[in-house]
Amino acid sequence: MESLAAHPFSFYCFVHMAHSGMDGRYFLSYEHIHLSVRALADRIRGEGFHPDLIVAIGSGGFIPARILKTFLEIPIFTVGISYYGPDNKPGPAPRAIQWIDEVEKKLAGRRILLVDEVDDSRVTLEYCLKELLKHSPAEIAVAVLHNKKKDKKGKLPPEIRRYFAGEELDDKWICYPWDARDITEHEKIARSGIAAH
Amino acid sequence: MESLAAHPFSFYCFVHMAHSGMDGRYFLSYEHIHLSVRALADRIRGEGFHPDLIVAIGSGGFIPARILKTFLEIPIFTVGISYYGPDNKPGPAPRAIQWIDEVEKKLAGRRILLVDEVDDSRVTLEYCLKELLKHSPAEIAVAVLHNKKKDKKGKLPPEIRRYFAGEELDDKWICYPWDARDITEHEKIARSGIAAH
Repeated sequence: MESLAAHPFSFYCFVHMAHSGMDGRYFLSYEHIHLSVRALADRIRGEGFHPDLIVAIGSGGFIPARILKTFLEIPIFTVGISYYGPDNKPGPAPRAIQWIDEVEKKLAGRRILLVDEVDDSRVTLEYCLKELLKHSPAEIAVAVLHNKKKDKKGKLPPEIRRYFAGEELDDKWICYPWDARDITEHEKIARSGIAAH
Repeated sequence: MESLAAHPFSFYCFVHMAHSGMDGRYFLSYEHIHLSVRALADRIRGEGFHPDLIVAIGSGGFIPARILKTFLEIPIFTVGISYYGPDNKPGPAPRAIQWIDEVEKKLAGRRILLVDEVDDSRVTLEYCLKELLKHSPAEIAVAVLHNKKKDKKGKLPPEIRRYFAGEELDDKWICYPWDARDITEHEKIARSGIAAH
């Protein structure tokens, strides 16, 4: 176990805050997520970090990564990680930029931004960072929407000098909008939660 | 060029409709997108199609695919296509389900749902479908949020028997929420556009 303070990386937390609802869960609207990503992009650039590409951890990182692309204007590659079982614009012709085993070749000497929705136990992040570091990138930074304030099982490798978290949250369940079966109800709860604080 | 009617696949269009704004562009809110995806998932299942996995076309397909995962509960793999230049849940230990060249091996004998946000010229879809068909899947179906009503440069291979489009739209610019630099303004326009019709 280790605390964030033990790391020599920059640490950011934004003013734009999520609030937990009546039952202690965090309900986040799509607009809230989008605004958090924009703030994250501003801080990443403001810090002078100019990544060449995003590596999104699937599937939780897909939506934050795609919104981040709007602001950073860099390509997204993806990696799919599971703890469990097996689980456009016109031009002359289409071509694959990742079909499918080309990604690793693209990492050497590049500045990578590894993106996920939440840093919970940190085990997934550690695993991905170690894999990516094998391919000699110039730098890898981490960007997550949310860091849960808790002891972390996983450790960030010492090569990681920048870690951007949109928000620091208590160790409670986070209800992301993309997981909502009833999005209208979800957005209503998310809005009222924010309004109540 | 060919018309949709020339194809022997099932074709679906939903009641949940997008409306173009004052300037002829379609502004779609996140909630609208989420509801469209839910309706798409209902129709896919209602049709008796039970895909084993999603292949999302990056980066436009990432958000629809991730929402679709909530309703279909199947894994997402991704492919990145460009017309231009080079451009969680805890368990014992993390493992890669797509790191990175493992995907093709997973396609043989599987039912695949290829997902993108929009079927515009159909060139990207044709390219992806042909590539995926090389790996002997049991079936590939297509799901897009929007099909633009226009002549199509690309053709769907004859093996494709099911094509699901959330909505049929005129050939106008579609403003997706994830591309919005000002999401608050975007959502406002999207809501007023719908309200005005």
